[in-house]
Amino acid sequence: MYSALMSTSERLIEATRELLWERGYVGTSPRAVQQAAGAGQGSMYHHFAGKPDLALAAIRRTSEEMGAAAEAVLGGEGTAYARIEAYLLRERDVLRGCPVGRLTMDPEVIADPVLRAPVDEALGRLRARLAEVVREGLDSGELSASLDADEIAATVVSTVQGGYVLARATGSRAPFDSAVRGLLSLLTPRTAAG
Amino acid sequence: MYSALMSTSERLIEATRELLWERGYVGTSPRAVQQAAGAGQGSMYHHFAGKPDLALAAIRRTSEEMGAAAEAVLGGEGTAYARIEAYLLRERDVLRGCPVGRLTMDPEVIADPVLRAPVDEALGRLRARLAEVVREGLDSGELSASLDADEIAATVVSTVQGGYVLARATGSRAPFDSAVRGLLSLLTPRTAAG
Repeated sequence: MYSALMSTSERLIEATRELLWERGYVGTSPRAVQQAAGAGQGSMYHHFAGKPDLALAAIRRTSEEMGAAAEAVLGGEGTAYARIEAYLLRERDVLRGCPVGRLTMDPEVIADPVLRAPVDEALGRLRARLAEVVREGLDSGELSASLDADEIAATVVSTVQGGYVLARATGSRAPFDSAVRGLLSLLTPRTAAG
Repeated sequence: MYSALMSTSERLIEATRELLWERGYVGTSPRAVQQAAGAGQGSMYHHFAGKPDLALAAIRRTSEEMGAAAEAVLGGEGTAYARIEAYLLRERDVLRGCPVGRLTMDPEVIADPVLRAPVDEALGRLRARLAEVVREGLDSGELSASLDADEIAATVVSTVQGGYVLARATGSRAPFDSAVRGLLSLLTPRTAAG
């Protein structure tokens, strides 16, 4: 499944990331990771102390990637509204959902402060970054002054995370797209909306 | 765990509902259900053909309850905005999340059309019911005419479902409440917001 040029520990991390995304922490067995990575049990325990240790490395990398993907659009050119729009409309594999957000449904991730920390940090950083952009829009008068930047940032991230839930329920990305369009229509600068 | 007055099949369904909510389908073993229900393996297979059959009964009941809880606020008195507000602010065990929505993160539920059907129907009915209320608000001029009822309904449900994700990540209901307040501030009748 992975290139022979990748080190064994790299293959283990990448296999774990895929399995966590697809099946979650509870549904991912060390044996399944070893099979997907083409690594033996001894090799896995040589590189990682166990499933939690390997999962932590995988979750950290996935969380970093989520942050970088968001920054690529939120840190770009354009008005605050245009950057929030770009974030909401950026290309996504909607039916797979969010590899970070889905971990919050995993009881063993949520119960373990070490595994939960990178999930909490990634979603917290995303909200903070979005709040900065919303604040720019408030300062420039582009967004309605009655809005609260932190609240709107939470609404934006929730719409995306909940949009995945609706899309996966129907087996189609349509409800995700509806939810995002609905939010954008609510955020549309009031001067433009009349 | 359950009253001795409940029939064995009732105890099995209620135990399955709790375990599906807490651990999901992949993380729920027949043995755990039997233990929680105080029922033997033979008894479980006397009443249900297997885990999928029992899960289906549990998911159907949970989906019906979700619909009834939503209708209790959406079918109440008041303006469209007031009823959407009541839906968003209704009492919830935020850190447990939605027992229906969480199933969408379960690969075995999503891959099985029979198990996915009640999840899809429950979230679909909820969106349709909310869209009716939004449409009332559009017709009365209470909500901005530039909004689309189906889109706003999807945004409302997504905000709730995604709010659970944010709350569970932080271990606090605060981000859920922020997301809901943000959405309400965006929905506030424009005449009132000025």
